[in-house]
Amino acid sequence: MSSLNKRFPRLLPEPIRKGVSAADLIDGAFKAYNGGRLAEACRLFTEKMVAANGTVGMSLTGALTPAGLGRAAIIPLLKAGFVDWIISTGANLYHDLHFGLGMNLYAGSPFLDDVNLRKEGIIRIYDVLFDYDVLLDTDAFVRQVIQGPEFQKCMGTDEFHYLLGKYVYERERKLGIKETSVLSAAYQLGVPVFTSSPGDSSIGMNVAAMALRDSKLQFDVNRDVNQTASIVYAAKSNGDTSSVFILGGGSPKNFILQTEPQIQEVMGIEERGHDYFLQCTDARPDTGGLSGATPNEAVSWGKIDPDNLPDCVVCYADSTITLPLITAYALSRTKPRKPKRLYDRRDALLETIRAQYLRCGTITKIGHRTDLEKPKRGRSGRSVTGTKRESANGKSTAKSSPKTKGKK
Amino acid sequence: MSSLNKRFPRLLPEPIRKGVSAADLIDGAFKAYNGGRLAEACRLFTEKMVAANGTVGMSLTGALTPAGLGRAAIIPLLKAGFVDWIISTGANLYHDLHFGLGMNLYAGSPFLDDVNLRKEGIIRIYDVLFDYDVLLDTDAFVRQVIQGPEFQKCMGTDEFHYLLGKYVYERERKLGIKETSVLSAAYQLGVPVFTSSPGDSSIGMNVAAMALRDSKLQFDVNRDVNQTASIVYAAKSNGDTSSVFILGGGSPKNFILQTEPQIQEVMGIEERGHDYFLQCTDARPDTGGLSGATPNEAVSWGKIDPDNLPDCVVCYADSTITLPLITAYALSRTKPRKPKRLYDRRDALLETIRAQYLRCGTITKIGHRTDLEKPKRGRSGRSVTGTKRESANGKSTAKSSPKTKGKK
Amino acid sequence: MSSLNKRFPRLLPEPIRKGVSAADLIDGAFKAYNGGRLAEACRLFTEKMVAANGTVGMSLTGALTPAGLGRAAIIPLLKAGFVDWIISTGANLYHDLHFGLGMNLYAGSPFLDDVNLRKEGIIRIYDVLFDYDVLLDTDAFVRQVIQGPEFQKCMGTDEFHYLLGKYVYERERKLGIKETSVLSAAYQLGVPVFTSSPGDSSIGMNVAAMALRDSKLQFDVNRDVNQTASIVYAAKSNGDTSSVFILGGGSPKNFILQTEPQIQEVMGIEERGHDYFLQCTDARPDTGGLSGATPNEAVSWGKIDPDNLPDCVVCYADSTITLPLITAYALSRTKPRKPKRLYDRRDALLETIRAQYLRCGTITKIGHRTDLEKPKRGRSGRSVTGTKRESANGKSTAKSSPKTKGKK
Amino acid sequence: MSSLNKRFPRLLPEPIRKGVSAADLIDGAFKAYNGGRLAEACRLFTEKMVAANGTVGMSLTGALTPAGLGRAAIIPLLKAGFVDWIISTGANLYHDLHFGLGMNLYAGSPFLDDVNLRKEGIIRIYDVLFDYDVLLDTDAFVRQVIQGPEFQKCMGTDEFHYLLGKYVYERERKLGIKETSVLSAAYQLGVPVFTSSPGDSSIGMNVAAMALRDSKLQFDVNRDVNQTASIVYAAKSNGDTSSVFILGGGSPKNFILQTEPQIQEVMGIEERGHDYFLQCTDARPDTGGLSGATPNEAVSWGKIDPDNLPDCVVCYADSTITLPLITAYALSRTKPRKPKRLYDRRDALLETIRAQYLRCGTITKIGHRTDLEKPKRGRSGRSVTGTKRESANGKSTAKSSPKTKGKK
Repeated sequence: MSSLNKRFPRLLPEPIRKGVSAADLIDGAFKAYNGGRLAEACRLFTEKMVAANGTVGMSLTGALTPAGLGRAAIIPLLKAGFVDWIISTGANLYHDLHFGLGMNLYAGSPFLDDVNLRKEGIIRIYDVLFDYDVLLDTDAFVRQVIQGPEFQKCMGTDEFHYLLGKYVYERERKLGIKETSVLSAAYQLGVPVFTSSPGDSSIGMNVAAMALRDSKLQFDVNRDVNQTASIVYAAKSNGDTSSVFILGGGSPKNFILQTEPQIQEVMGIEERGHDYFLQCTDARPDTGGLSGATPNEAVSWGKIDPDNLPDCVVCYADSTITLPLITAYALSRTKPRKPKRLYDRRDALLETIRAQYLRCGTITKIGHRTDLEKPKRGRSGRSVTGTKRESANGKSTAKSSPKTKGKK
Repeated sequence: MSSLNKRFPRLLPEPIRKGVSAADLIDGAFKAYNGGRLAEACRLFTEKMVAANGTVGMSLTGALTPAGLGRAAIIPLLKAGFVDWIISTGANLYHDLHFGLGMNLYAGSPFLDDVNLRKEGIIRIYDVLFDYDVLLDTDAFVRQVIQGPEFQKCMGTDEFHYLLGKYVYERERKLGIKETSVLSAAYQLGVPVFTSSPGDSSIGMNVAAMALRDSKLQFDVNRDVNQTASIVYAAKSNGDTSSVFILGGGSPKNFILQTEPQIQEVMGIEERGHDYFLQCTDARPDTGGLSGATPNEAVSWGKIDPDNLPDCVVCYADSTITLPLITAYALSRTKPRKPKRLYDRRDALLETIRAQYLRCGTITKIGHRTDLEKPKRGRSGRSVTGTKRESANGKSTAKSSPKTKGKK
Repeated sequence: MSSLNKRFPRLLPEPIRKGVSAADLIDGAFKAYNGGRLAEACRLFTEKMVAANGTVGMSLTGALTPAGLGRAAIIPLLKAGFVDWIISTGANLYHDLHFGLGMNLYAGSPFLDDVNLRKEGIIRIYDVLFDYDVLLDTDAFVRQVIQGPEFQKCMGTDEFHYLLGKYVYERERKLGIKETSVLSAAYQLGVPVFTSSPGDSSIGMNVAAMALRDSKLQFDVNRDVNQTASIVYAAKSNGDTSSVFILGGGSPKNFILQTEPQIQEVMGIEERGHDYFLQCTDARPDTGGLSGATPNEAVSWGKIDPDNLPDCVVCYADSTITLPLITAYALSRTKPRKPKRLYDRRDALLETIRAQYLRCGTITKIGHRTDLEKPKRGRSGRSVTGTKRESANGKSTAKSSPKTKGKK
Repeated sequence: MSSLNKRFPRLLPEPIRKGVSAADLIDGAFKAYNGGRLAEACRLFTEKMVAANGTVGMSLTGALTPAGLGRAAIIPLLKAGFVDWIISTGANLYHDLHFGLGMNLYAGSPFLDDVNLRKEGIIRIYDVLFDYDVLLDTDAFVRQVIQGPEFQKCMGTDEFHYLLGKYVYERERKLGIKETSVLSAAYQLGVPVFTSSPGDSSIGMNVAAMALRDSKLQFDVNRDVNQTASIVYAAKSNGDTSSVFILGGGSPKNFILQTEPQIQEVMGIEERGHDYFLQCTDARPDTGGLSGATPNEAVSWGKIDPDNLPDCVVCYADSTITLPLITAYALSRTKPRKPKRLYDRRDALLETIRAQYLRCGTITKIGHRTDLEKPKRGRSGRSVTGTKRESANGKSTAKSSPKTKGKK
């Protein structure tokens, strides 16, 4: 008889009953494979990532806002203080505007004839449908707004989205609607929202077109890179955790993860990588793309702290399924946090990392900085699997730290 | 302005709240992509497939019972009368025995060293772990049981599983456990359980080894083929619906769907195909395999009634996520049904289709039998999307039938 | 500076040139990710699996014969003596008949309206199209043939397919066509062809219907299980290698791999698992199904010899791409082998394993038999990556054996 | 009997023979499913996209250059004049530098222990390995180079990559190596290379860090958006075709496709969409992301000309397999073209579209501009399937235009 019973919990779910809550269903019936990963994801997010005031960054790819996930899940997470900063594709923010401007999207079908839709002036995102006018009106809104004097400069995308969010918020108020737009909610809550590809969406397209007229608006890409690194650096140098919640993959995944190499490898500041890693995706590792790269691989790059590998979870499933479940679980199982309002401290955060960079960095080749043997300040707590968990090489790496023990 | 608002519901979810039930979460926040498909699947199963006494066949592939889905979901569905017959891989039934025999499986990790596991005598199914003795003891149980006199003949796999289920049920009673084994539950409820590949699993392996001794047990594959067709034929010739709920794909998917070509194309009996089709899988259509073949393609084969295409749903997600959610939804949103106990009528069902076959079939080439223009008895009801829905070619095909309108 | 240069080859492909051969392209330009795996698969198959008279079993799933892969690749592999036995879904063998009977399939499109196709009497397999009559005529052929006296008994599927193959071969001769049918080629070359699910296809459907008349044909599933194990046992007890070439996954994958547990765990004969494992699939491991289970996981079950893990390759790509490339590579890079004609020795092979089983096996629980510490007869040779290769846990496990060094 | 034989070619491949060329293998044995799509992709690229001086844009995502595809395939395509402009992730261009700077990458294994790799200072991209110093040295190279006076300004990424490519080219010459770097080749051939996410990669990270010192280098995102649209507009307003060759998906896919909405929807210029669409990806449509969105869906957005849907091909397979095959096919089946050197005309191209925009565009809402009924200048030629091909809604849409008939 092996020692399995001492190392892992017995797999024996409860029968599903009528009226079960989402959180109880996840704890009771999601035991293995991607179901098991999703349950681990729920516990990782709830018991570790948002515990002890850890800083949580979220990356958004895939057309999540057109599917209604802004209103259903992202805004509730922002309001609960569970997400502190965001990297998004431009498309998610552009389509978020439709909701904030009170426009209508429809739950259609993926099996329609697109040539007919084109003739009718209907736009399709898989099974989400809306009128061509939704695009044209949203475009006109963007062009209108960015003529304002506060937009006539070069700025980081967090500032741009903050300013834009203010206009959306005002439109929401005028229309008497609320909790419709991520940009509006982020503006209200001081959550910085970046995009890694500022020209790549209808927002960027309209900004670009206006630049052919007399607009002075330009994106300060360099600031975004340094600003995102500054957020992670601030968390880590405080002894807090820094976690990433990655929906999809793509450029936003790379951008949220590159904060650590930016600190360690480019700026020459000693660091160990993000503490917790949670990804919901359909991208597999074997095609070599970053979208499907595992947390293990990220360890080799210094993006993830190797001691925390057991607290990295990848769930292979559509975000339209996983995000509502994780949101329901977190809201049901733990208390809201006070929003960190990182946007309000953006200048100070940037200045801190700039000063540290000028102390540590060089223009010539930087030496290897990462000393994994050095003792570090304790952080991680109980493993998300509920028992000690073996790492990939068979050694137990779970640590216990009663103070960060999650509520369950 | 297009007529979208008249054809499709507005996509505007409710914000997720603390303590939300699984069923409300699905209705409120699953609006598009695979999340939308999953919500449609829940409604299709609940409002149409199990409505009006329709016959529901379920196919099981992927290692579902090792993940605990027998106890968590399949047994509750059987007890609620929502599944009338089953096609399973042998592996799912073999691993189901471990639960019925009171053995322990563990919720482990997919990242263990398999060479070490092999040395320790631990068996791994992705992240499910158990001792090698679990296999050896289960094997011995099978060999022991099939020495009984009732097993000394050639029989269909439904009969074999019924007889085996009786022994599992008795073991459960002796151990004082219940609701652990699908085979035991199916035995108690008269639900016939077939396998399309009777030699392909440790059950079949032990039966085969015993045949090298003096066992007379042999599987009657022909009976299985005709028996499964007889179940579908009975439902359809009664004017009831016949539906398939396909978890995964593989040989069981083919076997559950081939019932209609067996009736139409081999036996020469006029029919139109299954009424409702629900599949949860990760197999995509583009690789050409039957696992990923769409309900549309099945129409060209006569497996699916073309009029019911809008009531066919494929959700691309792991069954360990979708099955608990569909189960929770169905148990919460509709009342249990009285089990049909199809097993008890197996001889009569077979005789009925045999007689009809001898009337309609020939050994020489059978003529084209399917007359799609002929009026048929009404069945399908409100579309699962809640509004009229366009079919692939843009024509509205939804019908309304107030009497089958589902509870919501 | 690490020791990478001593452990792995430099990654520096040659630029692709006009007129390049398929084999040179694979060696020259397929360096990483699934491209790298495919190159490894080509070398594994060519330099190891078919080297030194090793026994090679192939499993076929997905609708490969409708895509023309029977004629394009499988028959050439059989004729070159590179595949010694086959497990196939019934569907692949049924559709193989169309080619052998001189019927026409068409390279169509996946984007056609299936309701129209149904009305026109056209059958669709993704983008492969053919007339409904192809099915009806093939069905009639099967019913006609199995009325012969040699079919009036219970038999293994290898015997059934051999007898059927003879009729196809005769039809080919009459039609003046050749190299069209896998069943015909296997008949001519003495390659046993099994199916793990004999009722699951139109072949099985017609056999079943005829059993409702007066046909005595029945499948001996037990014999198939023992016969396939006997082939593997014969190879291994000769000191030769036993390899599996898995296209897709599904029940045939399980059936080809279960030969080793049948030997070790059910029959109680000491063995270590298959030597080489090659799979082309789109099934990923995380959904827990056997289709996507890795060779590593198979080690924990005793299906794969743990010492040979570095010689196990999984390539995630469609068989319609990988199989032609592997076939072209093998035919270009090594010489044909003399066919083993295993079918001719089927009775003797079965008798050998039966005798050994009666020596080693018990009806009661079998003890743990596998002694991984015991020295074994040397086999494996140069790793397919061209250099020593690290196993999952970082230890080098590659061995060198000049006599099996593959031609390159 | 249906009319299949008049509408589609018979599916009857030639048996694969020893020594077959890659191009003959594709034409002879790739007949259905993704294999069929790959053959169509080869013919679409060769016979239509590069025919008649059409403009071809390529988008690169996934870690293609680390897999050696820069040297193996992309540079040969550039040198043959088959790719006129490029959108790439930053990562592909950053890793391209390693090759141009003469550094070593290794063909390793995906099954290594990443904690050990981190300790040894080895970086892993799935199965590609290299020393940490490769990153540190490349970073230092970037920082060194961008101190030059020509970099002290705000510029489009095409200009930035051109200037950077010149330094790589000089390094190649000094090292006596060639055909190693895409950036160097693009510099030499005047192929503009854009990135949609200029901050998102180690190149952008080093640029950003230097901006914390005294670097004046900033990316002009607006120019990139307008410049890419200007390339497409120039092709289309000349009556030539504009095609996209998309490897992977992600932000570069969106960026290359948004050129058409930028022209039509933001600038208000009447246009119909790209002519030919070729994508190799593993992203499926059902998750709703743009990576997996089909050409059909792109029609509803005006990104693709609806008349050309039959000439849009998506092949679901890893680019490490498809790109070498498409490259080998194109180089073998058609003649090189004279490079267009679009970079040299960048200012003029931009000025042209700017002038047209100022004529057509408005700041307020733009009217619907697309008149699909209007006759257009003839372009498309013989369908890639070799026969007339039905569109999704069953109408034949293939056109014949002898003058553009591809060489075969």
